[in-house]
Amino acid sequence: MTVSDLIQQIEAKKSYLCVGLDSDIEKLPAHLPKTTASILTFNKAIIEATHEFAVAYKINTAFYEQYGAEGWNIMEKTLELIPKECFTIADAKRGDIGNTGKMYAKAFLQNMDFDSITVSPYMGRDSVEPFLSYGKVVIVLGLTSNSGSQDFQHLTTPNGKLYEEVISTVATWGSPENMMFVVGATQAEKLQEIRAIVPNHFLLVPGVGSQGGSLEEVSKNGLISSCGLLVNSSRGIIYKSNDEGFADAAREEAKLLQTEMASYL
Amino acid sequence: MTVSDLIQQIEAKKSYLCVGLDSDIEKLPAHLPKTTASILTFNKAIIEATHEFAVAYKINTAFYEQYGAEGWNIMEKTLELIPKECFTIADAKRGDIGNTGKMYAKAFLQNMDFDSITVSPYMGRDSVEPFLSYGKVVIVLGLTSNSGSQDFQHLTTPNGKLYEEVISTVATWGSPENMMFVVGATQAEKLQEIRAIVPNHFLLVPGVGSQGGSLEEVSKNGLISSCGLLVNSSRGIIYKSNDEGFADAAREEAKLLQTEMASYL
Repeated sequence: MTVSDLIQQIEAKKSYLCVGLDSDIEKLPAHLPKTTASILTFNKAIIEATHEFAVAYKINTAFYEQYGAEGWNIMEKTLELIPKECFTIADAKRGDIGNTGKMYAKAFLQNMDFDSITVSPYMGRDSVEPFLSYGKVVIVLGLTSNSGSQDFQHLTTPNGKLYEEVISTVATWGSPENMMFVVGATQAEKLQEIRAIVPNHFLLVPGVGSQGGSLEEVSKNGLISSCGLLVNSSRGIIYKSNDEGFADAAREEAKLLQTEMASYL
Repeated sequence: MTVSDLIQQIEAKKSYLCVGLDSDIEKLPAHLPKTTASILTFNKAIIEATHEFAVAYKINTAFYEQYGAEGWNIMEKTLELIPKECFTIADAKRGDIGNTGKMYAKAFLQNMDFDSITVSPYMGRDSVEPFLSYGKVVIVLGLTSNSGSQDFQHLTTPNGKLYEEVISTVATWGSPENMMFVVGATQAEKLQEIRAIVPNHFLLVPGVGSQGGSLEEVSKNGLISSCGLLVNSSRGIIYKSNDEGFADAAREEAKLLQTEMASYL
């Protein structure tokens, strides 16, 4: 689906919620057997319970790669379970040049048909562009929410901090129709500055909830007329309860976030 | 295997050659059927033909991920075919924080038992450290050889270019025993500067041959008493010939590079 389709869904559902499927055998509800098959059972229940309130699902590829080929299969099957009106994100943080970049793009955007993929910008233009030729969306790491973001992203460069330079430069390689940026939610005070650089792009904001970001702050500083925000919650939703009522608990949590989002839209 | 084991192998084989298994169905020798199974047949022949002259093999994960779960299986089987005395590199360019980084590390360094993995530094310390806790080696992108390296890696920061700042900072998070850096070979003139920053670390140098780097230049500027170099060649070796003699041709090319390397050691 395109960014225009996403905007329609946001208007219809009054939500800019992205549910992160960081599904880990060790954290599954206690009654489920600790097998990779249970991840699919779990994901199916979570998707069915939350899709009324979510416009996007983010699959964190690391959680699936840890189980090798079997995990890769479960990732593919999970993607098929996501309703077609939801925007899908491969949170893969890939990035490599030319031919290699094209293969990552092919893997996620063509063979698996994700709507988008997260990409690291360190290697520059020819590591981002291969992802732009599939008519999908590339989501480039701008400012991340972890403590390590201080190490390099905040370095002073001739045109501002590195993350500002990255966002303003990368934005010239695409358009708001085929490009978004990851902006860590714990940096809500930075959102205004970033909005000045990319007034029309969608921002994928992880870290609301368990990583300490405030939905109100993020919304106040990040919303634009087309919404322009996807706010992700992973653990806060999918692990809300550890018992047989986990799907209902996830649904309640998603509904709560959607209700709050509706009030900001 | 450890960096000390690698140094022993370099001394024994008089080689610091790394063979890159960028194996692509479309480029396999013409007589092989265009199937994923042929990739394994091809890799087996290449490994058998070249391991006398190579101390390391680099598996470019994108080439395998493009075939989904099946590709992942072939990657695992290829890894098993590499002789134990050779250092193995997952060229995965991963990088994510905390729990997620740990899962990537587990996937490649524990479940698949690679000796090392390439990692992107953009997200900072807590995206690199999860890879350091498996007693293996993390290979961090320093200066890459692609044209896009100009976009951000060469930006001026308070302590030199970004790539210099990245290399000098990242080096403090580990030691030459558990950390290496990727340094693009087409930037041979930069190797001296980088050697001044990390006089004792191994550098993984891709891009000799098809990407235009000169082995002589790289060796002159990069070698240290423990060698400190792994020079990678992918296409130049594995696709040297497209007919039934492809393995012999790969062997001859590897031997040629090894002979030249022996003269620099």
